[in-house]
Amino acid sequence: MKDFTFYNPTRIEFGKNKENNIGQYVKEFGVNSILILYGSDRIKKDGLFGRITVSLEEQGIVHEAVGGVISNPLISRVRDAVKVVKTNNLKGILAVGGGSVLDSAKAVAAGAKYDGNVWDFFIGKAEVQDALPVFSVMTLAATGSEMNPYGVLTNSETQQKYPIGSPLLFPKVSVINPDLMASVTPEYLAYSAVDIFSHCLDLYFTASFLPDYTAALIENILETVMRTTNRLMTNPDDYYARGEFAWTATMALNGNTFVGVEGNSYDTHMIEHAMGALYNVPHGAGLAVVLPAWMMEIKDRCPERFERFAKKIFNSADSDEGISKLTEWFTSIGAPVTFAQAGLAEDTVDPIAENAFGNAKLWGMDEMYPQDRIAKILKLAVK
Amino acid sequence: MKDFTFYNPTRIEFGKNKENNIGQYVKEFGVNSILILYGSDRIKKDGLFGRITVSLEEQGIVHEAVGGVISNPLISRVRDAVKVVKTNNLKGILAVGGGSVLDSAKAVAAGAKYDGNVWDFFIGKAEVQDALPVFSVMTLAATGSEMNPYGVLTNSETQQKYPIGSPLLFPKVSVINPDLMASVTPEYLAYSAVDIFSHCLDLYFTASFLPDYTAALIENILETVMRTTNRLMTNPDDYYARGEFAWTATMALNGNTFVGVEGNSYDTHMIEHAMGALYNVPHGAGLAVVLPAWMMEIKDRCPERFERFAKKIFNSADSDEGISKLTEWFTSIGAPVTFAQAGLAEDTVDPIAENAFGNAKLWGMDEMYPQDRIAKILKLAVK
Repeated sequence: MKDFTFYNPTRIEFGKNKENNIGQYVKEFGVNSILILYGSDRIKKDGLFGRITVSLEEQGIVHEAVGGVISNPLISRVRDAVKVVKTNNLKGILAVGGGSVLDSAKAVAAGAKYDGNVWDFFIGKAEVQDALPVFSVMTLAATGSEMNPYGVLTNSETQQKYPIGSPLLFPKVSVINPDLMASVTPEYLAYSAVDIFSHCLDLYFTASFLPDYTAALIENILETVMRTTNRLMTNPDDYYARGEFAWTATMALNGNTFVGVEGNSYDTHMIEHAMGALYNVPHGAGLAVVLPAWMMEIKDRCPERFERFAKKIFNSADSDEGISKLTEWFTSIGAPVTFAQAGLAEDTVDPIAENAFGNAKLWGMDEMYPQDRIAKILKLAVK
Repeated sequence: MKDFTFYNPTRIEFGKNKENNIGQYVKEFGVNSILILYGSDRIKKDGLFGRITVSLEEQGIVHEAVGGVISNPLISRVRDAVKVVKTNNLKGILAVGGGSVLDSAKAVAAGAKYDGNVWDFFIGKAEVQDALPVFSVMTLAATGSEMNPYGVLTNSETQQKYPIGSPLLFPKVSVINPDLMASVTPEYLAYSAVDIFSHCLDLYFTASFLPDYTAALIENILETVMRTTNRLMTNPDDYYARGEFAWTATMALNGNTFVGVEGNSYDTHMIEHAMGALYNVPHGAGLAVVLPAWMMEIKDRCPERFERFAKKIFNSADSDEGISKLTEWFTSIGAPVTFAQAGLAEDTVDPIAENAFGNAKLWGMDEMYPQDRIAKILKLAVK
């Protein structure tokens, strides 16, 4: 076991209709005015937005709203939202949506307490010193943002997709009601499953030290994701499966999988962020393309870990079969595993590799991943 | 998945020499004076006490100390400590020891902010409304008290061993340094392993609903405890095993095993607390006697759960073999599984059953456990 600090103060309110108590949860933190940040207007049509505003108003909480947050969320929208918060002197941010909305909400929370350019936090020019409290009602389970202090945003001007992080950005309360996720499309369910796999496998295959307990925890998450995704593909209304799926998304990036681990990095994310920044590929789709190719490239670095993966997850004694079975499973749930399937032309390899190498430098991974090695990985997915 | 709230704000500082930073951790919470609560004077002889006071003094933190907390800790010692805190107007409590010391520290923290009898919190006469911040440096891993809001104390006048609980009693920071646990005797290591098993199996076998993910998490904890205990019995200085063992003790009672679970109760604890209250049996020893007997009694309530346990933990297709293998393993590590081995005479069955029935009434379990059923379970362990 390597030294670690575990700290995660986010409160999760999990279950049916819990979003109807959001006003009460916000009020507990002394917040009397709030920005509701959301994505598409679907939440207005299906009544969720209305139920949330009723709950806020019952507690006397004043609210403004900013919508239009998109997948691969943009820093420009965050800037718009920061203006609304500052103009109205709002005291909190409530994200209603998936990881994109919540990641944006964290940036708004930090930006509202900062006089400079909010992008400074992403490029390492400033550290978050203060932030408004963040709350969330999740409508998609994938990124784990509901119980961690991280966010990822895209700057379309500079074509950068970069992360932000600070202990001040842990959501105070996140609501996870599996019923709110029942309308997620099969396509996005697949992308979400891949995102969870990627959070787990980046760590599983890169850690220089991985305790057996933590390895088994990750395997439990992966098995649960596969089992519940398969169930949900045939029955989207399976509340139990939707709930287990949602909780594993949370567990995959809330600190539990880091326990006692040393030397891990987020290699597939480093590469995929370039796809999102340049070609607006959905995060999970890009990861599905990158993950098997990356596994092929690095498998000799930790053969015993690949053997364990094949055995535990696919009951196979053959490491390569572990990778091919994973690829097959991605295909079976409708996730793209080639450039063509993800709608990417072959000639995007070099620009993606170049952009990803920019991430590698920022993340201190450029020695391990020179640009030509990133291109080599990407080419494995060009078929 | 049943509805749940997950909330656990305790920060864990895990690793080598982390206790030397305790002054800094305490200072971060604005605490400038503290009571050090501890058990035996061993920590003075081995230098731990000295290192902690140096760390506190480096941060200008004034301290008083109260020692003498014993296994099955007494409310009388808590009262002594509350007096010292009030007299010196101390602003925090630092537990240095195992679960007994930390449980006592939580009661002191609540008692220091209460004008009445601190035992009121245990018998349901008062609720904790305020408490001093609690910190801990753990020297024994077993109870999980380092990352939860519970404590159990014994009132020797009334012969009651009762729990206290409040979100205000989560420790702010707990230090887990496996090196500080290397001197735990094999006897207490075995008791600790049994305590962790009991926290897990009480839930595993009583839950009316247990998600597969949560069941697998519990099985991971149990497998890790068995593997690491076996290693530590031959090599007490195995830092890695000591660390994994410690973390599973924390995980077994920090809320993770409650996720999505319904209808669980702490049946073996309800019975064992009577053994501790009346005959001062070490908690883990009492649990080792009660657990297999209780499993025999209730196995028909959830046969599929017993089948799963036998298969997953002991690779056996026979439920009864699951119980007998567990009993054998307890014996192999030196835990008592009969009254005689625990130093209890046969004629203690009735007094224990009577006292435990008092717990059953307080915990709302008296319908499920009339006194004669408790006696029946205990008699299974009289051999």
